[in-house]
Amino acid sequence: MTTPSDPLPGLGAWADETETPPPPPAPKSRDLGAALAEIADHFGDRYTENESTRQQHAHTLTWTQNEPPDAVVFPQTTEEVAQIVKICAAHRVPVIAFGTGTSLEGHVNAPMGGVCVDTSLMKRIIAIHAEDLDCIVEAGVTRKELNDALRHTGLFFPIDPGADASLGGMASTRASGTNAVRYGTMKDNVLALTVVTASGEIMRTGSRARKSSAGYDLTRLFVGAEGTLGIITQITLRLQGLPESIVGGVCPFPSVKAACDATILTIQSGLPVARIELLDALAVRSVNIHSKLDLPETPMLLVEFHGTDASAREQAERFGEIAAELGGGPFTFASKPEKRTKLWQARHDAYWAGFTLRPGAKGLATDICVPISRLAECVTQTQDDMAASNLIGPIIGHVGDGNFHVNLLFDIEDAEEVSRVESFLERLVERGLSMDGTCTGEHGVGQAKLKYMALEHDAPALAAMRALKSALDPAGIMNPGKLVG
Amino acid sequence: MTTPSDPLPGLGAWADETETPPPPPAPKSRDLGAALAEIADHFGDRYTENESTRQQHAHTLTWTQNEPPDAVVFPQTTEEVAQIVKICAAHRVPVIAFGTGTSLEGHVNAPMGGVCVDTSLMKRIIAIHAEDLDCIVEAGVTRKELNDALRHTGLFFPIDPGADASLGGMASTRASGTNAVRYGTMKDNVLALTVVTASGEIMRTGSRARKSSAGYDLTRLFVGAEGTLGIITQITLRLQGLPESIVGGVCPFPSVKAACDATILTIQSGLPVARIELLDALAVRSVNIHSKLDLPETPMLLVEFHGTDASAREQAERFGEIAAELGGGPFTFASKPEKRTKLWQARHDAYWAGFTLRPGAKGLATDICVPISRLAECVTQTQDDMAASNLIGPIIGHVGDGNFHVNLLFDIEDAEEVSRVESFLERLVERGLSMDGTCTGEHGVGQAKLKYMALEHDAPALAAMRALKSALDPAGIMNPGKLVG
Repeated sequence: MTTPSDPLPGLGAWADETETPPPPPAPKSRDLGAALAEIADHFGDRYTENESTRQQHAHTLTWTQNEPPDAVVFPQTTEEVAQIVKICAAHRVPVIAFGTGTSLEGHVNAPMGGVCVDTSLMKRIIAIHAEDLDCIVEAGVTRKELNDALRHTGLFFPIDPGADASLGGMASTRASGTNAVRYGTMKDNVLALTVVTASGEIMRTGSRARKSSAGYDLTRLFVGAEGTLGIITQITLRLQGLPESIVGGVCPFPSVKAACDATILTIQSGLPVARIELLDALAVRSVNIHSKLDLPETPMLLVEFHGTDASAREQAERFGEIAAELGGGPFTFASKPEKRTKLWQARHDAYWAGFTLRPGAKGLATDICVPISRLAECVTQTQDDMAASNLIGPIIGHVGDGNFHVNLLFDIEDAEEVSRVESFLERLVERGLSMDGTCTGEHGVGQAKLKYMALEHDAPALAAMRALKSALDPAGIMNPGKLVG
Repeated sequence: MTTPSDPLPGLGAWADETETPPPPPAPKSRDLGAALAEIADHFGDRYTENESTRQQHAHTLTWTQNEPPDAVVFPQTTEEVAQIVKICAAHRVPVIAFGTGTSLEGHVNAPMGGVCVDTSLMKRIIAIHAEDLDCIVEAGVTRKELNDALRHTGLFFPIDPGADASLGGMASTRASGTNAVRYGTMKDNVLALTVVTASGEIMRTGSRARKSSAGYDLTRLFVGAEGTLGIITQITLRLQGLPESIVGGVCPFPSVKAACDATILTIQSGLPVARIELLDALAVRSVNIHSKLDLPETPMLLVEFHGTDASAREQAERFGEIAAELGGGPFTFASKPEKRTKLWQARHDAYWAGFTLRPGAKGLATDICVPISRLAECVTQTQDDMAASNLIGPIIGHVGDGNFHVNLLFDIEDAEEVSRVESFLERLVERGLSMDGTCTGEHGVGQAKLKYMALEHDAPALAAMRALKSALDPAGIMNPGKLVG
């Protein structure tokens, strides 16, 4: 079992800059044994302290150290989640919500131990309101499962972060992905939530109305809160009508700058592009190897337009003209669904494709987001920085939003290289912030980006975040050590 | 001068349902005289205690009683707002932010007196970033002023609540209006804010990045907080490319139900309608009289499509087909800008047009919002209720969002009629909530809808809102008596 460590890892910088309000206290006067016994008693074989299960539930795709919880429990209902949290609250034991474990910044680690609440048995699709273009799902439903359930309704749920993540996890990390440029992020597509509060109460935030001005926006407060204020157990989501027609394809560009400029022009001219993704030359090379494609190994935009037959084609033609103006092209349509699916599958596999460039390396996917006018500069400087630092990492971006990923490949056993990676990451964040951007567009803070929070936010904003945490989780039991420390 | 009254008007119901956390304390140990003297000293002729100015600043378009502040001050910068709040915080004096005074639920009243911070001198457009489709403005800039400044950029700011409200006020009330069905509400169009906190600190929430997962969504917390957590002084807004083509017109329907069903089909089939507004027969009659139009006096949709020439026309044709399926039509295009402008001006004047139906009457504009599948039923029941209650009120709705307004016209001197109005309003809210809607889609809570908060939100949600208020405004000086009481 883990023991409580420093209650505020990585928060030194904050403490210097802001005095009030105090950080949330570390869980204290806890009685872990009593809590685990009570939960085990209630949940029987849906409770485990098995070593490998615990480690699995702190597993992370990046280099963050595995810090397993003391136990994992598999509730089936909101009421059961409330029961778990009530027990943990009584004994001041940390509670960590778990979806599919595809988060990238150590969100599900348990640095102070505690109980992991795995929502994978919460799979009910409670209602699909086709006429209202909304649905209500339990937190454990994944985005693909939801889209399967919607197959015959003419509707779909557009947010697509790549991984088949749970919708509870996607809401908690404010996920987005390839479709966000047209359909927004989780922030824009969650109408309401059911949340188990830090005291184990069940709360509903919002209604099924499309909009409301009735009070503080609790929904948006819990979206992106990474389970540090409560546990999302049900989500009311907006849905979209399936477009009559989807037209997409690939378009090579002579430079990253030309590709970014084409993106800016596309968006500025009001073309409602559904997806517009940049792959730098290195990323194209890795995708070619991994997915057996033969794309020209030069900066590339993958684009997709949704609309009626006529409007989707018109949009695509306009885009082709814009690309040509910037020296790009030819824009090759992939009008057949199979070909389009293969292309987007290749895009989604880009993280894994990266490893073909350095087999056996450790992968680390990071993300920042800047205003699009600064994107070309930011990407180019980042490429130069990698070259100067003797590091390798393909770059892939949701460029319509100014958001890009560097998938670093390095030898984690080589302390000197690891140190170069660390310095590079710090400069990457500083570069993004200096351009009025953010240290994470969609991955979230978790543990790994905690140290950048004081760089990004001013002292009153950090103080406000801490005050919110203390207000809603006064005992500090909800996913401690994340987001605000 | 006003004296502090009940610190929590209208909150009896809450107190019964939830015990923790305690409500924010009423401002206490205050020294109003000292605060006013300090502010007067700093601001000279930009400070006034003039009776009519004070009353003007508590003016409301509805029937809420005028409760003037003790003084009005006109800062020119964020730093001056911070200075005012610091003085008020030191003396525990209420601070009420004021934009253009077009809010509808008593948001700017000063039930406990205090200092009104009029932002009308804060008119700087700090930056327009055309490439990034964003801009930064001071809180006192109105939406029309912003659009004038954008005239030669090819961009526009789409949120249009009708009134030429200040952007600070629009952010604070989470305003929306006719374009929200396509472009979203203020919640969706604010990227970042500068906020003066309750202790007089200056805080920036967010960056110019299109999206971020870096911490709690402070921006969305202040949007719609009605000045109860801090004062918004600068706003970073998303802008849109001006559509190449706008096609719009009017389409009569045999019934409210047919018009609502046409709306549902339009949205469900993915047509990106920019505006879709319902006027019931009574509203059409009043608009005809007021704006000298000759529309058929039957339920009517005003619609508008934005796109390329071809796509906007295609969308309009599709809509015409949908309308015909539902027994509506003919859909008459108003392709000339002048004619379209006249039509939308008539729509925006609908509030004033209502008075033609009962000259000399008091007007009261209320709003609720329901899932669109329930809209026809909700509007029809509301019409029946008005008929049964012998009340008159045209109905106008942003039906693409399920949001509609009843503009009641009544004799405020007639206590019996006022009592019928009050009962009707209560039933209206109950009807909306019973359909999983909200007591206000866009007007906000202010004072007048405080009493419905406990009907709409469950006890843990109300407790959470109070906890947020206490956390960010522990002395309770920011616009007291509103939103959470």
